[in-house]
Amino acid sequence: MSYFKIKGVLPPMITPFDENDNVDYDKFANNVEKWNDYDLAGYLVLGSNSETVYLTEEEKLKLIELTVKHRKEGKIVMAGTGMESTRDTIVLTNKAANLGADCALILTPFYYGGKMNDEVLINFFTEVADNVKIPVLIYNVTKFTHVNISPKAVSVLSKHPNIIGMKDSSGSIPQLVDFKAVVDMDNFNLMVGTASAWYPALTLGVEGSVMALANCCPVECIEVQKEYEAGNLDKARQIYERVFPVNSAVTGKYGIAGLKYACDKLGFSGGLVRKPLLQLKDEEKAGLEEILVKAEVLK
Amino acid sequence: MSYFKIKGVLPPMITPFDENDNVDYDKFANNVEKWNDYDLAGYLVLGSNSETVYLTEEEKLKLIELTVKHRKEGKIVMAGTGMESTRDTIVLTNKAANLGADCALILTPFYYGGKMNDEVLINFFTEVADNVKIPVLIYNVTKFTHVNISPKAVSVLSKHPNIIGMKDSSGSIPQLVDFKAVVDMDNFNLMVGTASAWYPALTLGVEGSVMALANCCPVECIEVQKEYEAGNLDKARQIYERVFPVNSAVTGKYGIAGLKYACDKLGFSGGLVRKPLLQLKDEEKAGLEEILVKAEVLK
Amino acid sequence: MSYFKIKGVLPPMITPFDENDNVDYDKFANNVEKWNDYDLAGYLVLGSNSETVYLTEEEKLKLIELTVKHRKEGKIVMAGTGMESTRDTIVLTNKAANLGADCALILTPFYYGGKMNDEVLINFFTEVADNVKIPVLIYNVTKFTHVNISPKAVSVLSKHPNIIGMKDSSGSIPQLVDFKAVVDMDNFNLMVGTASAWYPALTLGVEGSVMALANCCPVECIEVQKEYEAGNLDKARQIYERVFPVNSAVTGKYGIAGLKYACDKLGFSGGLVRKPLLQLKDEEKAGLEEILVKAEVLK
Amino acid sequence: MSYFKIKGVLPPMITPFDENDNVDYDKFANNVEKWNDYDLAGYLVLGSNSETVYLTEEEKLKLIELTVKHRKEGKIVMAGTGMESTRDTIVLTNKAANLGADCALILTPFYYGGKMNDEVLINFFTEVADNVKIPVLIYNVTKFTHVNISPKAVSVLSKHPNIIGMKDSSGSIPQLVDFKAVVDMDNFNLMVGTASAWYPALTLGVEGSVMALANCCPVECIEVQKEYEAGNLDKARQIYERVFPVNSAVTGKYGIAGLKYACDKLGFSGGLVRKPLLQLKDEEKAGLEEILVKAEVLK
Repeated sequence: MSYFKIKGVLPPMITPFDENDNVDYDKFANNVEKWNDYDLAGYLVLGSNSETVYLTEEEKLKLIELTVKHRKEGKIVMAGTGMESTRDTIVLTNKAANLGADCALILTPFYYGGKMNDEVLINFFTEVADNVKIPVLIYNVTKFTHVNISPKAVSVLSKHPNIIGMKDSSGSIPQLVDFKAVVDMDNFNLMVGTASAWYPALTLGVEGSVMALANCCPVECIEVQKEYEAGNLDKARQIYERVFPVNSAVTGKYGIAGLKYACDKLGFSGGLVRKPLLQLKDEEKAGLEEILVKAEVLK
Repeated sequence: MSYFKIKGVLPPMITPFDENDNVDYDKFANNVEKWNDYDLAGYLVLGSNSETVYLTEEEKLKLIELTVKHRKEGKIVMAGTGMESTRDTIVLTNKAANLGADCALILTPFYYGGKMNDEVLINFFTEVADNVKIPVLIYNVTKFTHVNISPKAVSVLSKHPNIIGMKDSSGSIPQLVDFKAVVDMDNFNLMVGTASAWYPALTLGVEGSVMALANCCPVECIEVQKEYEAGNLDKARQIYERVFPVNSAVTGKYGIAGLKYACDKLGFSGGLVRKPLLQLKDEEKAGLEEILVKAEVLK
Repeated sequence: MSYFKIKGVLPPMITPFDENDNVDYDKFANNVEKWNDYDLAGYLVLGSNSETVYLTEEEKLKLIELTVKHRKEGKIVMAGTGMESTRDTIVLTNKAANLGADCALILTPFYYGGKMNDEVLINFFTEVADNVKIPVLIYNVTKFTHVNISPKAVSVLSKHPNIIGMKDSSGSIPQLVDFKAVVDMDNFNLMVGTASAWYPALTLGVEGSVMALANCCPVECIEVQKEYEAGNLDKARQIYERVFPVNSAVTGKYGIAGLKYACDKLGFSGGLVRKPLLQLKDEEKAGLEEILVKAEVLK
Repeated sequence: MSYFKIKGVLPPMITPFDENDNVDYDKFANNVEKWNDYDLAGYLVLGSNSETVYLTEEEKLKLIELTVKHRKEGKIVMAGTGMESTRDTIVLTNKAANLGADCALILTPFYYGGKMNDEVLINFFTEVADNVKIPVLIYNVTKFTHVNISPKAVSVLSKHPNIIGMKDSSGSIPQLVDFKAVVDMDNFNLMVGTASAWYPALTLGVEGSVMALANCCPVECIEVQKEYEAGNLDKARQIYERVFPVNSAVTGKYGIAGLKYACDKLGFSGGLVRKPLLQLKDEEKAGLEEILVKAEVLK
């Protein structure tokens, strides 16, 4: 049984690029060092916000290595090692394990979306979990994959000894209730994958999250949970509602380029996005800054 | 200023039909009388669950009349009087007002969905609100209309003195936060339109709801709010989670025919659905009963 | 057996409104008289482009009456009499029959879209066809209804002696092939419902169409078919491609207000749209005129 | 100017896998040799039907190499070398060029679909086309990518001297007309990417196609075009309609596993699919065989 509890906030770490479209590993390591100062539960390396689909395997492995090296003791290293094929996923996950990752976040395969039914997804995650050296979490991110894993499949998979949780990035609270109803919450880390669902998820008993917003606003993400747990619902909700528009901005309208720009403005190293993504234009920067100021995270 | 506060639960009342596909007004009145015994805030007559699109104007007016006549004093009568055209909406709403309805729930027009942009919706609701004798609430029910009113439009409309609230039936909590951010919660009744969002909505400060589930399970719908307000979060959440599958069943899988069957099993008068809708088949009845039993609402 | 062949083009007639939002019956009758001069197969009164969802029953019946009265002998009068409920559909269709309509175009019911499965749609159309005095055509217009009838349901329904055809407005040619494969083309009028599919549909053996564009550009719509039948494929295609952008403009970007404006510019009586729809703004009028000029239908 | 004309049919070649989930290169080469006997215009290696997302770079390069080696002289080798990032796409495309591929089919990037607007796609394809040694075709396959390139972007890109065409796999004929209207058909290969659009596309002047069906039914795919060009429209259409259900089966219901099974039954080497895709079950095999028999491609 490989279950361990994941409680708290993990940033799905951005990958800073330089002017030549290369990974800026120094900036990346620098971010990890900075985040170490906050009460974060750990780090997700190679999540959607890392532009992982734009990274070579070599770059991916280097980023895992750096995360393991620079994280403060006790912080969990979760690695996003899902690939389209079962065999590639197993190979990459075991490489991550060898580099010291504590667990793997595995995306639902999605290119042949019409074929990704319960049977296929159950087979896929089962075979992966059977063959990798670290525990696995399911990554459901419909916004990017256009695949939505069913509660029925999650129910089956949650019983696998090496599948210890899931990150649902749909933002749908009713769906979260459906997932909660079919898993054993004492032995399965049901996590949310977006700050837009963080406070409501806490009120439902969810205790972990991996949220883009935690890259640039770790304090607020952590505070929502701390206030909630201290019984200060109003305070928790107020913080959540205050930074909500920032989250919408850096995950929706302005995307990863916006998230990186917000990181730059708020004391972290954002860097550039890799092409084909485009950097923010000046008027977009101004629009985002206004949102940061209004949310009281930028003076 | 026509604002008044709506706090609590309203059932979007079903319309029982008899074997000849006629409205069974006695059963309908009987239901109102029964619901009077519960601590419901009032009634929605002619909501989506009433099969209002299958009703003639004569039937609609009779149902409003009966609701006003049989409701206990102090219970709000909200009437669903939205039509596709501005003029038809005004005419029907004023007829409802003349019959004693306290306020009107007005659907976003939707047939020409591609044209229902902010400008059109703002014009529509403004003209309606300007020309009707009772206060208006916006009804956003994307599941049926495939139109989703924007926070920007709601922001503008919420400032109209005769628009006193909105029912959002999307079930999306992040969207609810977006709506909340643009309205003055002290002068605008932001209500949810589905039991799947009820408990999380309460934790966000929403205080009113119109929910199909309140037809057959008024007690549980009311208790979620009472426990929440008493500070018993766990208890509120447990009731919410317990009846959640019933709500999914009577709004999703089994639809209105299921909602009516649940009403029949739980002491109210469900009756039949009107064609083209089909009655539940025997195996569907058995499936639904199992859900009711599991949720502990049926012995 | 009530089958009769429908070959050629029918305009889904617009309904001109005046400054007071009332139907301008004179303009309507005037249009019919003008269209009589063209080699159109007949008329559809109360189709989607008539803003029928904004019309009262009284207005609908008057429009049917006027169509029957003013149409040239031999032109088919098809009436759009689909309502959400089975009983309302039967009642309205028989009223249309009594007024002299030759056949009825019946929309798939759609408000409770999730429930509109094959069984429901087969039951609905069968019961309607069994109980009305004129032949019925199925109207599939997913763009507005978000319901798409399946080839399987069409296959069953096409065997009903009183269901003589269908209008598919999806614009999908592969779907048209699917429908063609399951019906008997000698006893079922498979028609397209959009000019964007007209020429390709002809090459597949379809011989009838009901197209918004025929309101303002009847000549071109008719010519495409005539040239195709004369074996002049290139000429047919050239006309089709030339007016294609006009069709996109008056069904997409500019909608019914655009269609009406184009009618006004091209010698017919467009009139205004009924609210909540909005009239074209000046820059929209200019944009549309440019398209009309470029397509060589306006000098 | 790197334009060359592509006329005729190319199979987007399947990749046979063996019982150990490894590429069966012999079977692959064997297929190429067999297809050489037909009047195909060439081959697409690494298209969606090749399960390219499941292949390692090494496997991809080997497949390109084998295609170049075994193709009959004069047959075009098109390689699917689109990756998510601009730099990876350029690198892989130039490797394909070095191995002898004649042109590259480049997928629209899609993971961050919400950001793939005209500006991003124009920049992406322009930078790729500027930096690769072989001509480029745009690959639009909304079914898998959920991204749909606009006519406006295609209009701009079609003017690039190194962008010589596009494969539109949407199956939408109206969209094909939109694309045709914005490109210079004498200098741009507008191709369809699905057999469901083949005959209608021919009637619109399209002369090239890359179609899954050509893997198992090359004769029929070729005959449709030959008959059309010979002026035998009815014959062309009949063949198209006859094999239409086979195409639906091997691209829809049964997917790539079905396509491979059909290849096996029809004289080619299908082999197995790679996991997570699942092989056909026995009843699926029977269902597919029935379709093959009915379409008269299997005795």
